Amino acid sequence: MAPVKKGILERLNAGEVVIGDGGFVFALEKRGYVKAGPWTPEAAAEHPEAVRQLHREFLRAGANVMQTFTFYASDDKLENRGQSLKLTGAQINEAACDLAREVANEGDALVAGGVSQTPSYLSCKSETEVKAIFKKQLDVFIKKNVDFLIAEYFEHVEEAVWAVEVLKGTGKPVAASLCIGPEGDMHGVSAGECAIRLVKAGAQIVGVNCHFDPLTCVKAVKMMKEAVEKAGLKAHYMVQPLAFHTPDCNCQGFIDLPEFPFGLEPRILTRWDMHKYAREAYNAGIYFIGGCCGFEPYHIRAVAEELAVERGMVPPGSQKHGMWGAGLEMHTKPWVRARARRDYWENLKPASGRPQCPSMSAPDSWGVTKGHSSLMQQKEATTQQQLKDLFERSKTH
Amino acid sequence: MAPVKKGILERLNAGEVVIGDGGFVFALEKRGYVKAGPWTPEAAAEHPEAVRQLHREFLRAGANVMQTFTFYASDDKLENRGQSLKLTGAQINEAACDLAREVANEGDALVAGGVSQTPSYLSCKSETEVKAIFKKQLDVFIKKNVDFLIAEYFEHVEEAVWAVEVLKGTGKPVAASLCIGPEGDMHGVSAGECAIRLVKAGAQIVGVNCHFDPLTCVKAVKMMKEAVEKAGLKAHYMVQPLAFHTPDCNCQGFIDLPEFPFGLEPRILTRWDMHKYAREAYNAGIYFIGGCCGFEPYHIRAVAEELAVERGMVPPGSQKHGMWGAGLEMHTKPWVRARARRDYWENLKPASGRPQCPSMSAPDSWGVTKGHSSLMQQKEATTQQQLKDLFERSKTH
Amino acid sequence: MAPVKKGILERLNAGEVVIGDGGFVFALEKRGYVKAGPWTPEAAAEHPEAVRQLHREFLRAGANVMQTFTFYASDDKLENRGQSLKLTGAQINEAACDLAREVANEGDALVAGGVSQTPSYLSCKSETEVKAIFKKQLDVFIKKNVDFLIAEYFEHVEEAVWAVEVLKGTGKPVAASLCIGPEGDMHGVSAGECAIRLVKAGAQIVGVNCHFDPLTCVKAVKMMKEAVEKAGLKAHYMVQPLAFHTPDCNCQGFIDLPEFPFGLEPRILTRWDMHKYAREAYNAGIYFIGGCCGFEPYHIRAVAEELAVERGMVPPGSQKHGMWGAGLEMHTKPWVRARARRDYWENLKPASGRPQCPSMSAPDSWGVTKGHSSLMQQKEATTQQQLKDLFERSKTH
Amino acid sequence: MAPVKKGILERLNAGEVVIGDGGFVFALEKRGYVKAGPWTPEAAAEHPEAVRQLHREFLRAGANVMQTFTFYASDDKLENRGQSLKLTGAQINEAACDLAREVANEGDALVAGGVSQTPSYLSCKSETEVKAIFKKQLDVFIKKNVDFLIAEYFEHVEEAVWAVEVLKGTGKPVAASLCIGPEGDMHGVSAGECAIRLVKAGAQIVGVNCHFDPLTCVKAVKMMKEAVEKAGLKAHYMVQPLAFHTPDCNCQGFIDLPEFPFGLEPRILTRWDMHKYAREAYNAGIYFIGGCCGFEPYHIRAVAEELAVERGMVPPGSQKHGMWGAGLEMHTKPWVRARARRDYWENLKPASGRPQCPSMSAPDSWGVTKGHSSLMQQKEATTQQQLKDLFERSKTH
Repeated sequence: MAPVKKGILERLNAGEVVIGDGGFVFALEKRGYVKAGPWTPEAAAEHPEAVRQLHREFLRAGANVMQTFTFYASDDKLENRGQSLKLTGAQINEAACDLAREVANEGDALVAGGVSQTPSYLSCKSETEVKAIFKKQLDVFIKKNVDFLIAEYFEHVEEAVWAVEVLKGTGKPVAASLCIGPEGDMHGVSAGECAIRLVKAGAQIVGVNCHFDPLTCVKAVKMMKEAVEKAGLKAHYMVQPLAFHTPDCNCQGFIDLPEFPFGLEPRILTRWDMHKYAREAYNAGIYFIGGCCGFEPYHIRAVAEELAVERGMVPPGSQKHGMWGAGLEMHTKPWVRARARRDYWENLKPASGRPQCPSMSAPDSWGVTKGHSSLMQQKEATTQQQLKDLFERSKTH
Repeated sequence: MAPVKKGILERLNAGEVVIGDGGFVFALEKRGYVKAGPWTPEAAAEHPEAVRQLHREFLRAGANVMQTFTFYASDDKLENRGQSLKLTGAQINEAACDLAREVANEGDALVAGGVSQTPSYLSCKSETEVKAIFKKQLDVFIKKNVDFLIAEYFEHVEEAVWAVEVLKGTGKPVAASLCIGPEGDMHGVSAGECAIRLVKAGAQIVGVNCHFDPLTCVKAVKMMKEAVEKAGLKAHYMVQPLAFHTPDCNCQGFIDLPEFPFGLEPRILTRWDMHKYAREAYNAGIYFIGGCCGFEPYHIRAVAEELAVERGMVPPGSQKHGMWGAGLEMHTKPWVRARARRDYWENLKPASGRPQCPSMSAPDSWGVTKGHSSLMQQKEATTQQQLKDLFERSKTH
Repeated sequence: MAPVKKGILERLNAGEVVIGDGGFVFALEKRGYVKAGPWTPEAAAEHPEAVRQLHREFLRAGANVMQTFTFYASDDKLENRGQSLKLTGAQINEAACDLAREVANEGDALVAGGVSQTPSYLSCKSETEVKAIFKKQLDVFIKKNVDFLIAEYFEHVEEAVWAVEVLKGTGKPVAASLCIGPEGDMHGVSAGECAIRLVKAGAQIVGVNCHFDPLTCVKAVKMMKEAVEKAGLKAHYMVQPLAFHTPDCNCQGFIDLPEFPFGLEPRILTRWDMHKYAREAYNAGIYFIGGCCGFEPYHIRAVAEELAVERGMVPPGSQKHGMWGAGLEMHTKPWVRARARRDYWENLKPASGRPQCPSMSAPDSWGVTKGHSSLMQQKEATTQQQLKDLFERSKTH
Repeated sequence: MAPVKKGILERLNAGEVVIGDGGFVFALEKRGYVKAGPWTPEAAAEHPEAVRQLHREFLRAGANVMQTFTFYASDDKLENRGQSLKLTGAQINEAACDLAREVANEGDALVAGGVSQTPSYLSCKSETEVKAIFKKQLDVFIKKNVDFLIAEYFEHVEEAVWAVEVLKGTGKPVAASLCIGPEGDMHGVSAGECAIRLVKAGAQIVGVNCHFDPLTCVKAVKMMKEAVEKAGLKAHYMVQPLAFHTPDCNCQGFIDLPEFPFGLEPRILTRWDMHKYAREAYNAGIYFIGGCCGFEPYHIRAVAEELAVERGMVPPGSQKHGMWGAGLEMHTKPWVRARARRDYWENLKPASGRPQCPSMSAPDSWGVTKGHSSLMQQKEATTQQQLKDLFERSKTH
């Protein structure tokens, strides 16, 4: 039997850094177990060995939290997607809880049961109906006795508040994380105001996840923290960003980038980018630091290594990793050995090897692509004719 | 008991496409089981579940070959690296064979035992000594009854020929693959001549792996094929390139790029790049098509999907993948749905999200970085003084 | 004798677009007549034919304003620079006025006498002293009877207000243009507040010039316009930006970019970028539209062509320019002929031909480059040791 | 009266560096006097002051050669273009000679009369007819007594040989310059063979101009030099490249780049690029070093400054230019002063300020753009259907 572990709030209250895991849907899509588009987590039941292995890798990398692989596993989502899944939502959610618990027991990690935004909310179902959806997943989490709960990946704070209200009923610690950036939620509620509402609804930990790159997410959580503190409230903060550089996003994040989801490779963060992220988050007073889409185990390990002194330990996975590239010290070529140092990797501006590609994209949404209305086109045609006349006239002078 | 499978040569003789797996050291480094620098495969014995899982993912992706995870597992390499491994080379090699066989039995895949270049050769040991090194790994492969043998990742054709000579003694089919590009091996032997020597030494399959991006590798293998055919010899061809774009390499490949090995992320190929690669290789008459460093399971799946019609099947992993992005058809945003089509992904020029990074690097080797000799510096100082004088004089006119 | 022309205010009051000229110091530096660093305009007296020719080219391109080439021609600047100029400030200023008038008389252009920021202000001389400096240049402008006056290229609104106060004394129309962006002046006064102070001081036209790219400048002038209107004041607006793309500037503009001033070539705007600029400025209600550093005559012509319908004319220089690339229609190669159309050039994303260069720079100022204090370095060394210990310890487990 | 100057051959025979001027059509297009598309030089007669000024600027920059502005001024070209020019070819050619001579007399420069490729050749006129075209321009050059002759901008060596044969008849020194790169002329004649033919036809100076960037042109002339020397012939060498970076060109040069001719700005060379070019050309034994399209006076000055020690002088224009950025030494900001040094500018990788643009383009020609034939499209449709079937079938397993 595993020893009793410190809970999530005990850790954060004690000023400890809690390291989250990475996003499962993207990592497992690349491994062949998740379908891009629906992004549903049936693999928890269909291919438990694959999900278990990914949990283990994040644990080795230093994660203190094993999130149940239950993203988008609400009944309305699973039905909606028309998957001939031959699996009920309960089966998927239960399998996911078992896997998370099994691996959490192998190290110093807690199990977090997660709910996320629902199709019901987007199709304007009532608060009661939406809450019933959350309740169903929650029943499994309670049955499986997860350590705490996370309401994550919400674009609208209203739905997130509903989720928090449902989760609070269990008495377990509740974290709430929106997939928004510094510009706020999709209804235009500012990041700061979102955080206040979530804290008032009962979330003990608030923050953002997904949709934006690490520095953008840290910026958004800083805005949340300032607002919560200004409002005289208290909370802990979490951040679980993308592992993709997204300086060119609009307010909807990486979904609107033309590279989403099958051309994001050139944007993947290096481990050294992760060092900067971890430091930045820590300096901002955010102590629950993890990842979302794009994070691979070595990204989480880099977070753990950057904060090794603060945490007083390096993760198990560091047995296979030299400090700041130290593993290169024994390379046969002297110019490769010369890369075994911190400032080399900190200052490297890595090339893409893609000279015909740009470094930024224009986000792709209706405003940009729908083009001109016929009225505008008509006006333009007139202008063109006038212009042609002026040019012609000028030639005869 | 598994049914008797067609051997590698039967398949290639019948004109079938054989899909290889991806490189294990890079994939497992990211998962936390291989140390960058030494790059040795002790994980086969230390963490068999991690290695087994990666084999399975490549199998699901369509691979017909499970290479034993025995890269750099020669005794001289393992000792040399000063690893306190607590494991003998034999233990590692045996464990690797067992894992490859276990997973190969789960589908239509063969097991290939692999040897690669040795520190002994680089430190000028004799042919006898180097061959003895190969022989030791080979003993395990024979004991474990692998299906065929691959001598791969050789920078010098001379050592590769020695390896082929050793492997040939077993009577098993032998493939030989150099880590060279179109400029030939490190002693200046042309790609074509390298291939001829390997075929004459007894390799039935020849090609290249690692060090360069797919299109560069295909180009090198085409040169090999032309030379072999011109010499009136017969062989099959294989290619297992990097999954990194390397248009800016010198003859030593990606090792000399400043991004090697911890900053290569922006160079990672997309699945659509892999479609082009697979088509290009197939059109060149190369039918053993796989991957090396940087390949993840979804890259191999893309190869299998591009050649689905030729092979008459899609791989198991395609159950979680829409054709040319078809999984996006059900997305809620119309402009994301609009991406569910072939020409969108074929023509996308993906942005890096890194506006302060270049798109190409200068390879980093002594020739580039050692700078000026003191003689040159002295000459330059004189010139600078003369120049200063000329400028000064011009002002007084 | 030339017919009496409409004055600057009559034109703007009538809703006409007034096209400015381009920046002389950069254009003449490239032609060999201005020294980068001091940037002083002694060429007006030393090489009048070169200055006259540039005026003519801007006139042909459609400019309605010939600014006297008197930038940095205040006595304190000329002395300060230690130039063995053999020319007095008065000689330079008079020569510049004569040239501007001579060419203005060849077309529909007005002469604007310009003053700019002074070393005296930066070295904290008194208001009286600074005003005396302006007064000296102004005496020449009055003697030479320029049509209106521009106080331009001021980083501090305080000094610009002093300049306006001096210029107002003449009774001539006064324009005032700061070299600031949307973040305001170097003392932190917002763009809007700057504009209000200038209008209150008596400037009839306000805006910005230099330091930032066209769209950034238009944005700053829009902020000025909104603030002036909100304050219940009335003014006309002008914009004379760089012809360099500067998305990566900090508040001091292109001076702080590492490419300033000898590596700005890759940032030069195309003529099609200028079409967008002209349209954007016009749509914002800015009707005095010109250019500053980097503008060549063809850039101004592009502004004039974009606004041809609004102005009811194309400039004389359009006799040598096809509408939207129409001159290519007769090219022998069909794929070059295919470029003779508007949407081709509007949508082109021009490549730099520089794969080893980034697309953005980090501005170069003390904050970025001064590095760490010794205290920070000491702290870092300690951390590194602790980290090393943690890594070592982890290996022995 | 001007002193008798050393002729072009005397200079080159004495080992002197001869600096050419830059390309007039591009420079004057930007100034508003040449129409892109036709690119004809009627400005020599229409706007002599503009052409004279450009000559003067190149002279100040250090040019020893004033090429008559007679590019494309053959009668067949002028007629062909359907220009309502109101000027005869003779008028244009004569005016151009007068201007070149006038400015050459102001310094140490020679006048070179130039002919270039003709529409007659491209429309398969006979050798006699084509030679008659050259003869007509040549009559003017003889009448105006130019110092030497250049046959330049020929894509086909055959036509260039005809031109040389005509020019030789005059007894004046003859230079011949093709607009080809290392891949040879448009009929596939190698660069080396082209040079041999030109030398045999009587050209005393051979080389290349236009179409490619400096380093590519130097490479092509080196190939010419090697071939000429290997053939036991003797010649001098010249190079007059573009001032645009064109690493992505195909064999037809910059014409086929999508940016030609109105989007080339991001490719413009800096003055520091020119230093490298001048050194590279000089080291290759090429001593007639000038420029073509894209060259502005400051580019030529940079060539002259790089070779100042070899030539024993800096050009007059250097009175307005600090050595290696020395003019910045007096800047008020210390971080800008820090740029007043050679290694800063030599190592700068200038950013484009265009994050949505690539660094390389794909050349635009029929081979690339014409797309698939209907046969290929049909085959592809079949494949797509087969693929769809395979995917569907895999789902039912």
